[in-house]
Amino acid sequence: MIERIAILGTGLLGTSVGLALRAAGFRGGIVGWNRSAEGAQVALAAGAIDSIAADPLQCARDSQVVLLGVPIYATLDFMEKLSGVLGSDHMVTDVGSTKRLISEAAARLFNTPDRAAFLPGHPMAGKERSGAALADAALFRDAVWLFTDDPNAQRSPHSAALVKGWREWVAAIGSRTVDLDPARHDELVAWVSHLPQFVATALSALLEEEVGAAPDLKDVGGRALHEMTRLGASPYSMWRDIAYTNTEAVAAALEALEQRLAHLRENLRTLELRDEFEQANRFRRE
Amino acid sequence: MIERIAILGTGLLGTSVGLALRAAGFRGGIVGWNRSAEGAQVALAAGAIDSIAADPLQCARDSQVVLLGVPIYATLDFMEKLSGVLGSDHMVTDVGSTKRLISEAAARLFNTPDRAAFLPGHPMAGKERSGAALADAALFRDAVWLFTDDPNAQRSPHSAALVKGWREWVAAIGSRTVDLDPARHDELVAWVSHLPQFVATALSALLEEEVGAAPDLKDVGGRALHEMTRLGASPYSMWRDIAYTNTEAVAAALEALEQRLAHLRENLRTLELRDEFEQANRFRRE
Repeated sequence: MIERIAILGTGLLGTSVGLALRAAGFRGGIVGWNRSAEGAQVALAAGAIDSIAADPLQCARDSQVVLLGVPIYATLDFMEKLSGVLGSDHMVTDVGSTKRLISEAAARLFNTPDRAAFLPGHPMAGKERSGAALADAALFRDAVWLFTDDPNAQRSPHSAALVKGWREWVAAIGSRTVDLDPARHDELVAWVSHLPQFVATALSALLEEEVGAAPDLKDVGGRALHEMTRLGASPYSMWRDIAYTNTEAVAAALEALEQRLAHLRENLRTLELRDEFEQANRFRRE
Repeated sequence: MIERIAILGTGLLGTSVGLALRAAGFRGGIVGWNRSAEGAQVALAAGAIDSIAADPLQCARDSQVVLLGVPIYATLDFMEKLSGVLGSDHMVTDVGSTKRLISEAAARLFNTPDRAAFLPGHPMAGKERSGAALADAALFRDAVWLFTDDPNAQRSPHSAALVKGWREWVAAIGSRTVDLDPARHDELVAWVSHLPQFVATALSALLEEEVGAAPDLKDVGGRALHEMTRLGASPYSMWRDIAYTNTEAVAAALEALEQRLAHLRENLRTLELRDEFEQANRFRRE
């Protein structure tokens, strides 16, 4: 039923979605647009898109499903512009890592019978480096794809069917979909996604200061150190909008960890350390 | 030249050393002893040892090289006992994660012309779960194996040759050896090994409190969360001695990270966040 998809932003996620759709048997058209021409060329060469659009709004209008694969503030910008040019025979979705602002904009700009549908989405998959060149058709396999849809959305039957169709494609590319309230989403990902990222950033930055000048010692830590700092390679450009749009929840999670580390530090020689290890063991219990 | 090796403590590391030696072509005898009979049986069944010794001191005396594969305080206990029964035709080495106390004991109890040699060692390899059942012949491949040998050791030619022979076997099983001063060793591993472990423990313990009751949400974080908490499964029994014997260096590293996290938390909306990401990126530069 979905015959044409526009991917606006062919970075790591947008390009991977195109590849995954093709691998899962999607036979419709996929047209791509990217802020830098190079990223679009890489996506085209990889087969994630069939053609490159010059005008993102025109290309969205000519498609049924529009996937926004850009950072959060760029997503909000596109939402404003798209709401003026799309109608009840379109549906838009995104891959942004925070959902409160985007869900608010969706309620304001979309999801009435005469407007396009907007389904806020967030695939819990990615890499520590960005760009179409690292795209992977298997990126979403066995991942969770979160949605924070509005239970009060009043959609046209056509756009509602597109939303249903998109959910089916997300399942077809291997993801498990989970529906959450937007505020609960932002709080949850502050713990399970943003906190781990900021910890890896702080740990990597600290270690660069302590042992960065001794390259022969940097790799002494082996696999454990490598894993704990892999996300240290994540670019600021990807995380700036997340920090800005989920500040309170991230700050609360960081402060809780600071206190936990201080507690551990003060108890390196007491039985409280055992309790802390046992509590951690419970989180990793199979 | 080494004809018989005693592995006292056939846990994950001791058993893996036995397997790795066999895989690298060691043809001498390997006899094992373990505090629990079950661990020794697993090592025997896996082919890491040829026989199980009833008396660790007797089995050490009957060997040329003795590998201590037990926790740090148990290593210190064995050092006291072994120094009384071994002589200048023996050499002892260990795998303990802190080296200051062990190196001090080595200088006091070994490394004179009429006594056994002691070479303090620390393979930077392991798993988050312990036990012979997880042993792996490839565990030390491409890992760093640290030594904190005493430049003032006065060894018999025989025991000095055994030390040289052991170093060659460590290289033969695939490890890169690095020599460090014991105090420098303990400071370095506080940063690149102990800090990552305690961070993973604190993060896992915190997340168990926050999302542990919602098993469907625990895995939402995907690969990143999995990596950042894998070490949360590490047992207290393995880390208690490390916390106790490297308390100051670990506490200093933890406090530095607490401050770094607070700095990041206070700058979620400023350009300082960019500086922190860029500093972290430098640590992970290929």
